[in-house]
Amino acid sequence: MNTIGNIFRLTSFGESHGAAIGGIIDGMPPGIDIDMAFIQSELDRRKPGQSDLTTGRKEGDRVEILSGVFEGKSTGTPIGFIVRNENQHSADYDNLRDIFRPSHADYTYFCKYGIRDHRGGGRTSARETISRVVAGAFAKLVLRQKGICIRAYTSQVGNISLSGTYQDYDLALAETNPVRCPDPETAERMAELIREVKAEGDTIGGVITGVITGCPAGLGEPVFDKLHAALGSAMLSINAAKGFEYGEGFAGVTQRGSEQNDIFTTDGKGGITTQTNHSGGIQGGISNGNDICFRVAFKPVATLLREQPTVGTDGNTTTVQARGRHDPCVLPRAVPIVEAMAAIVTLDKCLQAKC
Amino acid sequence: MNTIGNIFRLTSFGESHGAAIGGIIDGMPPGIDIDMAFIQSELDRRKPGQSDLTTGRKEGDRVEILSGVFEGKSTGTPIGFIVRNENQHSADYDNLRDIFRPSHADYTYFCKYGIRDHRGGGRTSARETISRVVAGAFAKLVLRQKGICIRAYTSQVGNISLSGTYQDYDLALAETNPVRCPDPETAERMAELIREVKAEGDTIGGVITGVITGCPAGLGEPVFDKLHAALGSAMLSINAAKGFEYGEGFAGVTQRGSEQNDIFTTDGKGGITTQTNHSGGIQGGISNGNDICFRVAFKPVATLLREQPTVGTDGNTTTVQARGRHDPCVLPRAVPIVEAMAAIVTLDKCLQAKC
Amino acid sequence: MNTIGNIFRLTSFGESHGAAIGGIIDGMPPGIDIDMAFIQSELDRRKPGQSDLTTGRKEGDRVEILSGVFEGKSTGTPIGFIVRNENQHSADYDNLRDIFRPSHADYTYFCKYGIRDHRGGGRTSARETISRVVAGAFAKLVLRQKGICIRAYTSQVGNISLSGTYQDYDLALAETNPVRCPDPETAERMAELIREVKAEGDTIGGVITGVITGCPAGLGEPVFDKLHAALGSAMLSINAAKGFEYGEGFAGVTQRGSEQNDIFTTDGKGGITTQTNHSGGIQGGISNGNDICFRVAFKPVATLLREQPTVGTDGNTTTVQARGRHDPCVLPRAVPIVEAMAAIVTLDKCLQAKC
Amino acid sequence: MNTIGNIFRLTSFGESHGAAIGGIIDGMPPGIDIDMAFIQSELDRRKPGQSDLTTGRKEGDRVEILSGVFEGKSTGTPIGFIVRNENQHSADYDNLRDIFRPSHADYTYFCKYGIRDHRGGGRTSARETISRVVAGAFAKLVLRQKGICIRAYTSQVGNISLSGTYQDYDLALAETNPVRCPDPETAERMAELIREVKAEGDTIGGVITGVITGCPAGLGEPVFDKLHAALGSAMLSINAAKGFEYGEGFAGVTQRGSEQNDIFTTDGKGGITTQTNHSGGIQGGISNGNDICFRVAFKPVATLLREQPTVGTDGNTTTVQARGRHDPCVLPRAVPIVEAMAAIVTLDKCLQAKC
Repeated sequence: MNTIGNIFRLTSFGESHGAAIGGIIDGMPPGIDIDMAFIQSELDRRKPGQSDLTTGRKEGDRVEILSGVFEGKSTGTPIGFIVRNENQHSADYDNLRDIFRPSHADYTYFCKYGIRDHRGGGRTSARETISRVVAGAFAKLVLRQKGICIRAYTSQVGNISLSGTYQDYDLALAETNPVRCPDPETAERMAELIREVKAEGDTIGGVITGVITGCPAGLGEPVFDKLHAALGSAMLSINAAKGFEYGEGFAGVTQRGSEQNDIFTTDGKGGITTQTNHSGGIQGGISNGNDICFRVAFKPVATLLREQPTVGTDGNTTTVQARGRHDPCVLPRAVPIVEAMAAIVTLDKCLQAKC
Repeated sequence: MNTIGNIFRLTSFGESHGAAIGGIIDGMPPGIDIDMAFIQSELDRRKPGQSDLTTGRKEGDRVEILSGVFEGKSTGTPIGFIVRNENQHSADYDNLRDIFRPSHADYTYFCKYGIRDHRGGGRTSARETISRVVAGAFAKLVLRQKGICIRAYTSQVGNISLSGTYQDYDLALAETNPVRCPDPETAERMAELIREVKAEGDTIGGVITGVITGCPAGLGEPVFDKLHAALGSAMLSINAAKGFEYGEGFAGVTQRGSEQNDIFTTDGKGGITTQTNHSGGIQGGISNGNDICFRVAFKPVATLLREQPTVGTDGNTTTVQARGRHDPCVLPRAVPIVEAMAAIVTLDKCLQAKC
Repeated sequence: MNTIGNIFRLTSFGESHGAAIGGIIDGMPPGIDIDMAFIQSELDRRKPGQSDLTTGRKEGDRVEILSGVFEGKSTGTPIGFIVRNENQHSADYDNLRDIFRPSHADYTYFCKYGIRDHRGGGRTSARETISRVVAGAFAKLVLRQKGICIRAYTSQVGNISLSGTYQDYDLALAETNPVRCPDPETAERMAELIREVKAEGDTIGGVITGVITGCPAGLGEPVFDKLHAALGSAMLSINAAKGFEYGEGFAGVTQRGSEQNDIFTTDGKGGITTQTNHSGGIQGGISNGNDICFRVAFKPVATLLREQPTVGTDGNTTTVQARGRHDPCVLPRAVPIVEAMAAIVTLDKCLQAKC
Repeated sequence: MNTIGNIFRLTSFGESHGAAIGGIIDGMPPGIDIDMAFIQSELDRRKPGQSDLTTGRKEGDRVEILSGVFEGKSTGTPIGFIVRNENQHSADYDNLRDIFRPSHADYTYFCKYGIRDHRGGGRTSARETISRVVAGAFAKLVLRQKGICIRAYTSQVGNISLSGTYQDYDLALAETNPVRCPDPETAERMAELIREVKAEGDTIGGVITGVITGCPAGLGEPVFDKLHAALGSAMLSINAAKGFEYGEGFAGVTQRGSEQNDIFTTDGKGGITTQTNHSGGIQGGISNGNDICFRVAFKPVATLLREQPTVGTDGNTTTVQARGRHDPCVLPRAVPIVEAMAAIVTLDKCLQAKC
């Protein structure tokens, strides 16, 4: 299924070297001012070629809205959009026509479909995430009106990680460096590691942390569509994602209940809050009004600019070495994608909960 | 939504202290021999009161099949089933009517619905997982015919964890001890920790590892319904789950691509395999024929047999102390639930892929 | 799929001679007073044995609610319910084990599933509609609060039909006679025809008219889930339904646009209404605030109490004659089923539209 | 929802006077030869300006495929496509900005969304059906390989109707006249009526008959997604559709069961067939291998080239008279749309049934 969401739904299409990437957003609330400059700026955040840490592939990546917006406002009808593919060096991939690249989806797609578009990974290319970022931008426009803000940042690259939690940093600083880490000093060390890895023709993984603030209590649908299950599914659907956790996550399994429980207390304004937020803003699958905090693990990029042994479609062993332009680390460009997926899920759950 | 799955679908109902827990399985393939003893035995694995490590609540938990099975075989029509609730000490929960228990879903359900069944957690009780285990047992009967086997085991309790991977153990041994850890010596240390924690009126978390063997290549639906995204969502929907990872997961983010890539090789029988399985059996969201391996983090149980401060529905501070019978650690009884969810997802993806 | 609805969803199970018929209602709004006597009374309206015009099969058909209701109110969690099958004369059907009854689903189910429960038609029995009536009763409880009222009545049996529209009758009178026709004189003629047909061991078809009043403008989701498309699908899913039309329907194709257009006019209270309602309350797939009016065609019951030639599962020709108790005309008992389906669809669309 | 289908799914977008109409086809089987000339020819069948019986609006309506096709074959990934809108005389609609046209969706959309694109009916324009025809053409390419053929034709315009059933005509002749009626003499009378109505600035309705041949037994999903319920919903979702019936439909309600039952008989080749096909190829919601036959009623077009009274958005009475180019009868151009919807539903049910 190339569709995500229940009320606010994105259906996407497009291959890396096809004519265009695009999608349809169904369920966009009507009457929302559509800030096209903002939408394009979100897309620019995931664009290749932003720094020496990312692929040199230059794509204009201009989004064209084809429907659902009238005189600057959403009408409630589906929003069709496309981003034309340009600057395709398809010939760079001719050698991949008959080869399965290690740890890519070449082999599994071939098993599943019996046919594959080998150019640039076809449908499995991260260019597919363009549709997600566009839909996420539309979602952010709605969430903004509800006072809900979504931020993500690089919290770990290889073995270099931030020591603090999201509350220890000014998250706006993440956008001031190419790694998208809110601590400039750590960001520089991460960048250095990425450059080092790149020089070796190798790649490296990392972790992105996401934070949703301003979220009302009551979002999430029990029992199979809990808020964190929907967020987890959305994050795990991003290329190269290998893990998802929220609140105290995996590290919290060593704690006692008496340590991890969030004690309720009055907020002094007639409402209820908690003394701590070990739960990550979600209890029983439903938001409790606290900040929602989660982490996503990304593996090192599978494409290496060095020779690797592999097997061809003819069953014979051979070698493969990527040509062309590739990211040594997905983290910097994955930050806006994580935000987009969080925005899509959050808005969907808001609309389900009629918030 | 109380439904999971696309082709093989479970819809569940039931509260802890209501008349019954149950569900409807839609999409069960026809003509499958229904081994009722096996289905009941799976349910018995999650039953309370199996050892001194779990709650003393005694429930017969007998499943009654109401439809969809004729003369011992599935007919392709929906399978309705119920498990009557018994031995309900609802009075044990009278004190919770007007109190929000810390890190439970009492508060969030109240925010969402404006009403809640406070008895035993109502719908948020882990008794809801009875439906999952029944559906998982039906799924296992089908998967068995396809040569697909699903196993889970406790790999960590608190800070006691297995040092090896699933290949280092005889997983059948997991069922020989109450912790469901395949290493008897580690199991005993885990049991000791749970008893210790229980004696303090406290609780502890842990990790369950799941393994799917015999899975053909080609399962999983790009791009939003990748196999690991569906597995992740299913696992995260289990009560107390806080994280999901597959393959090298979070730990693998420190690796280089050259370390983590799985090199393809010929299998000597005309087919293709990989030298390693860092990917955890899934590439690009589609199974590649290797064993599928994942891990699920569970937080310490929120219910403590000791006094905790909290707030009542009237907004005043108060205290709460659980009465009744509660698990100090969900891990042992969560093992069959993890297996059930893995079985449901795997069968659903098999049927989608027409395997 | 045994599920209908998007936000308010019914999933059903059950065979005619299995242990029980039942279902799960997901998406019931919380806080609604659940009038159990009303729900049972709705079920009693479709019960066999109400008069000499229907089957003599005597079923208590008592509904048991298993979840989702707490202290007399809905909680927002799924409502599981069952109706035990009783008074099963399964032996009456032994002769059907190896025979395909004409114009029944015996043959098509066998083609599709390779196995079938021959007793009483199994899943294809009209007893399946019990679940619909229960869910419809819950939906009516919610709709009532919104001022929306759903009525259906028998408007044609064989070639005896009402000459007027729904506005020409007091619809409450439909419940005063066994045919459920609001014109007592016509009802008597219809009853006479049914008795006559029954005496011949034959059966007869007819038409049920449905009316939804009090419906706000704005219900229905373009473009594939238009209100009348959802209503049509729901009605056509009822056993023996062969056609659906709304507004002027088939008869209106001979009209000119200048005759059939509904001219807008002011309603004298600052609002807008139409001078006529040829559209049947729906324009462009969305309700316009007028009464919604539709008609459903039902074929004559396929089960005859006379001998018919047929073919056995062994491929040889044979004959079949129904034993047991069967309706000569589905219309009288289908009226509450039509209402139930209309209630389910209308509530679902209300919740989608956040009305 | 702007999506139809379960396994083979179309999601559509686009307004009459927006940049483009388009959609995404998800679930297209891989490895199918994509005959672009055929797809364009299907689109040409619904194109305006084909004869003096349809609107004079001239649209090139060239479809551009953006993804999912590689080297002439489908790849199993989603097929994005667009058709640019051209020749938009948006100014023709300036007078409609503040007016609700009688029996159009102007008022209901405004009620539902609070905003509307008034140009050419916006989303409610029949130009939306372009997406359906494109998806239907893809479906036909797959069905053709399975030996399934879908045909539709105009069987009634106003009070002029064909006297025979589909078996009495050479359906290929339907494409030889602008009305798309397989009986040339009747076609000419229908054309005459349409011209007459057009000359009066008026419009007229009619009936389209659809026939699916070569369909295997076993298609259709009980109990809510019966084959005829899915077909009915799809047909009713077409602009101006007011009714759907299959088999003997509404007329058959006057028959006795002994007249309408289809008696099973051996087909002389070891298989089973029926002596008659009153059921219209569907029994119990599942195809039985016979030809599937259905009829769809279309109302007269709401847009009149004569003055009508109406009400403006300001609540004041006014008048409206269509300018521009409009069809006096939808039937001729609706034939390929009916076929497209039938193809989409049939392929979807084939894939669900794994045929």
